[in-house]
Amino acid sequence: MAEQTLPATGREWHLAARPNGWPVPEDFALVEAPVQAPGAGQIVVRNEFLSVDPYMRGRMNDVKSYVPPFRLGAVMDGGAVGRVVASEAEGFAVGDAVLHGLGWREYATLDAAKSVKVDASLPLQSYLGVLGMTGLTAYAGLLEVGGFKPGDAVFVSGAAGAVGSMVGQIAKLRGASLVVGSAGSDEKVRRLTEDFGFDAAFDYKNGPVAEQLAKVAPEGIDIYFDNVGGEHLEAAIGALKLKGRAVLCGAIAQYNDTNPPIGPRNLALAIGKRLRLEGMLVGDHYGLQPQFVAEVGEWLREGKLVVEDTVVDGFENTADAFLGMLHGANTGKMLVRLNG
Amino acid sequence: MAEQTLPATGREWHLAARPNGWPVPEDFALVEAPVQAPGAGQIVVRNEFLSVDPYMRGRMNDVKSYVPPFRLGAVMDGGAVGRVVASEAEGFAVGDAVLHGLGWREYATLDAAKSVKVDASLPLQSYLGVLGMTGLTAYAGLLEVGGFKPGDAVFVSGAAGAVGSMVGQIAKLRGASLVVGSAGSDEKVRRLTEDFGFDAAFDYKNGPVAEQLAKVAPEGIDIYFDNVGGEHLEAAIGALKLKGRAVLCGAIAQYNDTNPPIGPRNLALAIGKRLRLEGMLVGDHYGLQPQFVAEVGEWLREGKLVVEDTVVDGFENTADAFLGMLHGANTGKMLVRLNG
Repeated sequence: MAEQTLPATGREWHLAARPNGWPVPEDFALVEAPVQAPGAGQIVVRNEFLSVDPYMRGRMNDVKSYVPPFRLGAVMDGGAVGRVVASEAEGFAVGDAVLHGLGWREYATLDAAKSVKVDASLPLQSYLGVLGMTGLTAYAGLLEVGGFKPGDAVFVSGAAGAVGSMVGQIAKLRGASLVVGSAGSDEKVRRLTEDFGFDAAFDYKNGPVAEQLAKVAPEGIDIYFDNVGGEHLEAAIGALKLKGRAVLCGAIAQYNDTNPPIGPRNLALAIGKRLRLEGMLVGDHYGLQPQFVAEVGEWLREGKLVVEDTVVDGFENTADAFLGMLHGANTGKMLVRLNG
Repeated sequence: MAEQTLPATGREWHLAARPNGWPVPEDFALVEAPVQAPGAGQIVVRNEFLSVDPYMRGRMNDVKSYVPPFRLGAVMDGGAVGRVVASEAEGFAVGDAVLHGLGWREYATLDAAKSVKVDASLPLQSYLGVLGMTGLTAYAGLLEVGGFKPGDAVFVSGAAGAVGSMVGQIAKLRGASLVVGSAGSDEKVRRLTEDFGFDAAFDYKNGPVAEQLAKVAPEGIDIYFDNVGGEHLEAAIGALKLKGRAVLCGAIAQYNDTNPPIGPRNLALAIGKRLRLEGMLVGDHYGLQPQFVAEVGEWLREGKLVVEDTVVDGFENTADAFLGMLHGANTGKMLVRLNG
């Protein structure tokens, strides 16, 4: 249908070995592979931005989980956004911007039905972050799982991360009485209050989480949005007020542990305080997408949301970007931009 | 108004010392005290049955909780049912059967408005158990907090206890696909399957809970009703299916621990499985009372519910009954019957 201008080969990142504990560069391999011509109903996308996400660490293990594990010697899939460079699909033209799930490669050939066309008048990288799964995770987790109400006091861990920084801002925009967060460096803590509008924040490395949390939220909290698990969750259970809610969204503190983590020793407090702890995956909340795009898109256009993606340039740096994200090198969403 | 036939004194059980760890008989004192004449709007009740409950252990500690602590040197309050022996209250006549909260004494003088008249055509002890807070806890916990649906597979810990044996039976009567329970002796396990209609049961002292649970519920469970906490909760988190629910009702395994308990080390599984863990107190669910009394009362009249209270005779044995209950001496609700 459209002009076909495909290179013979493109680069891909493969899973070379399954890590035990923290992943290392040798677990990944940069491979040159043929670019497949599109079959009927297919498109070829030249990726412009790739997503590196905490959940990918789980997929590197060969265990049954909510998403199947990456296969050894195969591409590390994930969120990506790019432009159509060849199309055999009705309604998809060369130059269209699309979002899809075949990340960690320069060129992706896929069924057009498995991609979503996006409005290119907004920055394409938004669709991997604030207007993508990251934003929806924060939005659905706070509002639908956490049952946020105006006046609630909210505590977010991993607050300088992609999801956490959105949770705090959405809570403020929706009328929280208090928004506090934790992060892992002085610089991140500064950004939480100065850039993202948190009322207070602390560096969890500076002392026991429970003590630091009690200082910034002495009256307690109504919602805890958990991105890290471990000591943070225990501290939050102690600080939650009657009928408080903990949204269990991530446990990045535990992903690379080879020892079993410590569970919250004070969980029996949930009885008397009637706490609710609930795990979430964004995939359960796609029904909220129209409301989410409308409300968050409007905030974006009005300049009410601060989005500080961390962008690493160069496809060849994808594995390093992923490792850096696991070690906390990012503020906001961690992305890889593919060079022209 | 009515004939006044009060003795000068009656016996009461006082809290004599705050236990550190397991309570001992010396923590309680049997005291002879004056019986107060009723003031305007008051009644005097001669108690016939007293309740001894796990939650009372928590009230023996001097810590802020959902119910205030017992005071040293004062009566151990709690659920009781008896007959009015003197009344200065409109609508309350000598001989009326009433339920009230001033337990652990032979005679209680109280505002009639703080008591509830009950239908004496059913055994009075029912109002402390199957038709009382115990039954409502099981009913509301399973249906309202646990969101039970016909076809669900249910696991109950402390299953031979007052609440646990009701949970299992309500689940079966409401159409569970599988009801399994754990208890702490061979005799209790036998009763669970032979008397209470559980599909399977195991003695948690016979081996790791997770292994024993996997044998009786190899397909996993939809609801875990937690009366004990600790190792049971961790095993249940592992066995819960997608969108499973854990009703956190009690943590009797931990009440007498002086060391911090072990939290569930696998709590991060709640994310991928989207589990919900929710604490409950029966006091939040009084709105369910009319539906509860109608449905459970009907089951009782039809003989569909097996109620096996453990009744200890003699007011002087109340403290021993309480200690025995903490150590698992009861099957079903533990009660004290006051002798004629």
